[in-house]
Formats: sequence, structure tokens, C-alpha cells
Amino acid sequence: AEVKKIAVLGGDGIGPEVVGEALKVLKKTEELFGYQFETEHALFGGIAIDEKGTPLPQETLDLCKSADAVLLGAVGGPKWDNNSKELRPETGLLGIRKALGLFSNIRPANVFDCLKDASTLKPEVLEGTDLIVVRELTGGIYFGEKFRREGANGEEAVDTCVYNVQEVERIVRQAFDIAMTRSKRLASVDKANVLETSRLWREVVNRIAVEYPEVELEHVLVDNCAMQLLRRPSSFDVIVTENMFGDILSDEAAMLTGSIGMLSSASLGEGSFGLYEPVHGSAPDIAGQGISNPIATILSVALMFRLTFGYHEAAKSIEDAVKNVLDAGHRTGDIAVDKSKAIGTSAMGDLIVAAM
Amino acid sequence: AEVKKIAVLGGDGIGPEVVGEALKVLKKTEELFGYQFETEHALFGGIAIDEKGTPLPQETLDLCKSADAVLLGAVGGPKWDNNSKELRPETGLLGIRKALGLFSNIRPANVFDCLKDASTLKPEVLEGTDLIVVRELTGGIYFGEKFRREGANGEEAVDTCVYNVQEVERIVRQAFDIAMTRSKRLASVDKANVLETSRLWREVVNRIAVEYPEVELEHVLVDNCAMQLLRRPSSFDVIVTENMFGDILSDEAAMLTGSIGMLSSASLGEGSFGLYEPVHGSAPDIAGQGISNPIATILSVALMFRLTFGYHEAAKSIEDAVKNVLDAGHRTGDIAVDKSKAIGTSAMGDLIVAAM
Ligand SMILES: CC(C)[C@H](C(=O)O)[C@@H](O)C(=O)O
Ligand SMILES: CC(C)[C@H](C(=O)O)[C@@H](O)C(=O)O
Repeated sequence: AEVKKIAVLGGDGIGPEVVGEALKVLKKTEELFGYQFETEHALFGGIAIDEKGTPLPQETLDLCKSADAVLLGAVGGPKWDNNSKELRPETGLLGIRKALGLFSNIRPANVFDCLKDASTLKPEVLEGTDLIVVRELTGGIYFGEKFRREGANGEEAVDTCVYNVQEVERIVRQAFDIAMTRSKRLASVDKANVLETSRLWREVVNRIAVEYPEVELEHVLVDNCAMQLLRRPSSFDVIVTENMFGDILSDEAAMLTGSIGMLSSASLGEGSFGLYEPVHGSAPDIAGQGISNPIATILSVALMFRLTFGYHEAAKSIEDAVKNVLDAGHRTGDIAVDKSKAIGTSAMGDLIVAAM
Repeated sequence: AEVKKIAVLGGDGIGPEVVGEALKVLKKTEELFGYQFETEHALFGGIAIDEKGTPLPQETLDLCKSADAVLLGAVGGPKWDNNSKELRPETGLLGIRKALGLFSNIRPANVFDCLKDASTLKPEVLEGTDLIVVRELTGGIYFGEKFRREGANGEEAVDTCVYNVQEVERIVRQAFDIAMTRSKRLASVDKANVLETSRLWREVVNRIAVEYPEVELEHVLVDNCAMQLLRRPSSFDVIVTENMFGDILSDEAAMLTGSIGMLSSASLGEGSFGLYEPVHGSAPDIAGQGISNPIATILSVALMFRLTFGYHEAAKSIEDAVKNVLDAGHRTGDIAVDKSKAIGTSAMGDLIVAAM
């Protein structure tokens, strides 16, 4: 098989350790399916600030650009929280999204049957919840002009939220395409009763909807969506929304599944290139103790196989292995009911590799 | 006692009927406590569009300005949803906030013991949840410049989010003051890792915090807050945040209590003037059937008594009456477990009046 190049950015906190387990799984698929991967590590986030003076060094960006896909652990930690903007891990995250043109963030939020009790929602409400938030990732208020100025009433700060038709079109079309592969239901979330960008968003959605007559479309205001996710999570299939709303709603959706240590995400651009990472953060409080949960990162490899490489069989073998290991009762500390029986990061990785 | 003037804006859908019950309660307090109220009705929202061609007629605004407080039902409905911006009920809502200088929206989200099961959250998670969201209401992206323009990639839409130091100061100070009357815990929510307005917000919060050494302050990023509300709702006391984040989070908080038909809100400016309204909407689907739940509006009168008039004894008598009626098992359809035993809007109002 063709050699696929993967840029590996361990990042900060538990990032490197969970990525380490994901690489074991990757290796195992070479054995089982004859794939060939070339993996190359690079510095990103806080560690890159410490060692290179910038969260996204040029050589890291170059590596990513030369790769077929990127596997990212997590970035950030209290150590860098009070740095100036240019020296913060998040700035690297925003920078890599923009530099690689990753305009679409795909966040599945599904419930693992064996973890249903981990949610703070009632199991009967959660039953059947399996949704995907498609978040626009390189536009909106995140990337618009920001500045301070002297106003009539003293100093003021300004953020600008901008969307053009083309930016909305490409993400909305992608969301419709994803909906077509699923239950053909799409909820487009905006604040069209207040925001001009939302009115543009809604116009574009309605125009593109004509091309997808089979997809049942609903427009949901963002405040209402925050409520409906709580009231009827299982009624959603694909949710598409702009950058800031997507940030909030995808985290709300992730948390309500109770499976936050288990959720993977993909950031995609044009073509098949993608960056894959767990939804959870760098958890500096437990870093280095070997107790973090590697499953979200392992499942990010499965997502990479599906969305970038089209290796569906191997993706399924990873997903099934995770399921079997969980069904057999193995748990890391974060998802264990009986914490005394929790296993460590690498034990979990090994069990999943063995189950493939 | 001094005559207090209350502007009454029934609005649309179930608005007029729930307001009608609240006025019964108001009347009863005249009898019981010797207060005197002068109530005057005016058109607002969709009905004002239909009858006056604008959601906020000048005479309505004048009435509000001449009053000590405003009692609002609810506005909006599908009938006006596709109108142009100037002819939409929401535009009236934004207009009245700005014209009356109502910069602070106070949204209590507490759990009624007898309704705990109505929440989709597990009762043990919800236990003890009693928080207030203090939302900035006349600034931010809601009121910044909005426009369309031709960009390099075709048409684009722009919204501008602006905050000045003074706008942040007054809302933050109010939130600290409220926290001082409660458990002295304040969570300030922003997105300081991305937005300039949030960085200004955080600076101001930190500066004002020095004046309130007794208040335990935490900064929470908005995406994290959307998660923590689900994970540990009872750990929050007062949450203060900007307009857009407040819109989303206050609705999320309301929904998780399971008591959305029961929650009141206040919009305050400088001084004691305030606008009071239920958190729920105009529910056009059930309007005119006499089955809506008037409790949120009745509790809005209690909130008016506390925050505008300082009538604490009467406020308590309303709140206790509501509690007693609920404890006796009376329910409107929205909160009834056995829908066949549900009582109507005016029966509920009468029971509460009788229990005072
Ligand atoms: C760290 C932060 C800039 C980032 C975002 O808001 O996009 C994070 O919350 C995320 O969702 O990936
Ligand atoms: C109707 C709308 C403009 C309004 C808002 O977003 O402020 C509503 O959602 C609210 O919270 O009162």
C-alpha cells in the first residue's frame, strides 16, 4: 500500500501519552491490514513555546503541510495561561486551523451504551443520542479584526464577526453531505433574529437546501438549541453552525453524552487532508501519571481512517476493539465507577491493540 | 402608600393571559398589604405591529418611561417571523431594552423541589441548584454595527461586538453586589483566549474584584461553562457574562432546572426601575386555550416587588403561595405528570390568589 505520512503533535499535558497509545493502534493496523504509515513528531502548543518561542513553529507547519493527516494530542495548561496572546497555546491552535485551511470541525457526540450512567442526563432522555456538530472553524468572530480604541466613554474593545457567502456555502454543503450519509436531518443553528451574519447564513442554507430535497432541514436559534440539546438530544442528527456557536454547542453536546473522554474530532479542509484530535483537553492535573484515558485519541485514528484515508475496515476494527474492551469492563479512572479497579493509559492502549 | 405605576404589556400568544393572572395577584396584594397600583396597558410586539405598524410604538415607550416598572408577557409568533427586521417583535424587545437603558438581565434558575422530575437531568445532579445569570443586555454584538458589503469573495455580512470599560463595570459591579447577598460566589464567563472584548471584560472583572474581597471569583470560558452547567449546576451561585453568551447560557440554565414554565426575569437599569417578564416565550401553539402556566409571570411580580419596590413581605407571600399550591399537587398542563388532572390558567391564578 501507499505510504501515508502522519504529522504527530503530542502537545501538552496528557497529549503525548494519549497520542502514544494511538500510535500503538496505528502500528497494529500496519500489521493487520498491510498499511504503511510514516509518522513524524513535531512541537506544538505550550511545549513549542518553551522550546521554540512560538506555539506553532514554522517547521511544525511545514511538516503538517507535507503530511496526509495530522494527529494532535492536546495543548495548553496553566503555565502559559497568562502569557501574551502570541505566546499562548490557543494561538497556535487558531493559527494551524487557518494556515491549513481547516474550515470544518466535525464533532460526533454519541453515547457509549456502557457509559450511559456517566452522563448527568437521565438515561431515558439520552437513549439513542448520536449527533454530529459541524462547526465552521476559520471564520466569524474568531478571525475578524480585533482591537482597542478610545471611545466616547473611555477605552473600548472591538471584535468583528464576518462571514462571506462562500465560507458559509462550503461548510453548509459539507453538513448536508454528511446528513445524506446519516438520518438525513439537518439543524442549522444561528441567531438570525439579531445578527446580520446569521441572516446571511440562513439565506445560504435555504438556497443550498434546494439541492438536497431529501434532507429535512430545521433552523434553530442558538439559545433555543442550547435548550433543545438538553430536552431532546436524540432528536438531533447533524447540527451545522458558525464558529463561536459551534464552540459552545459542541462542548455542551459532548458533555451531555457523558462520554467526554471518549469523543474524537476531525478538522477538515478542501480535499481529504484532516487534523484529528480528542475533544478533551490537556488535563495538566493528571499529566505524567499514566492514568489518562487514551480512547478519544484512539478513536481519532479511526476517524482519520474513515475521513482521510478511506480505510473503513480498519476503522471498524478499532471501533469494535474499543467497544469490546469496554464491554469486558475495563475502565480508566475517568470513566470507572469503581475507581480502585481503574487501569492505566498504556494498559488500556494495550488491551485495545490486543482486541483488534 | 404611594401609588406605583406599572406599565402592562401583554404582548402576543399566551402573553396577555398569563399577565392577566399576574394582575389578579397584584390586586390581591393591594387588599392584603394596602399597596396601591395604577396599571396601564399598551401594545407591544406582534400585536403592535398589526395595530400600529411598529413593534414598539412611541406611546408604549412613553408609558413605560412614565411608569415605576413594566410587566411584560411575551412577544413573537410565526405570523411575524418572516417580516423585515423593523417589523419583527424581537426588534421591539431590543428597542425597549436600549430605550429604557436596561443594561442588566437577571435570570434566576432554581429548582422547584416538586418539579425536580421535570428536568432531564438526574435529580441528584440537580439537587441544590439555585443560580442567577446576570446578563449584560444593551451592548456587545447585539447592538454593534451590522451591515452587508462586497468583499474579495463576494457578498459578506458583518456584525460588530463592542464593549467599553464603563459598560462592563456597571454590570460586573451589579453582579458582585448580588453575589454579596447570596453565597458570595461569582463566575465570570468570557472567551478571553480568543476575543478582545473578553480580554477587556476580564481585566475589568479583576479590577473590580479587589473591591469585593469576600466574593470568591472564578473565570470560566464560555464553552467550558456550557459544560459545567451540565456537570455541576449546583456549584454555581451568580454567573455574570456579556449579552450573547448570556442569551445562550441563561437559556441552558433555565432548561436544566426543568422549571422553564416557572422562571421569572428582571431587566434593570440605573435606579430601581425594571422590566419584568417570564422566561418562557409566547407559545402561540397553545395561546387562547386557557391552558398556559401563569406561574412564571406571577413570580415576575414577586421579583418586581423585591427589586423595584422593596416590598419583600408581599413578595414572600406570593412565592409562598405558589409553593403551597404546587405542594398541594395543582399543576397546569406543562408541568403535570398526569395531564388529565391539569388545571387551566385562571384556575391556577385563582388558587395562588386564594393561598396568599
Ligand atoms: C482553545 C480555543 C481557542 C478553542 C476554540 O475556541 O476553538 C477550543 O475551545 C476548541 O473548541 O477547540
Ligand atoms: C428575542 C431575542 C432577541 C431575545 C434575545 O436574544 O435577547 C431573547 O432570546 C431573549 O433572551 O430575551
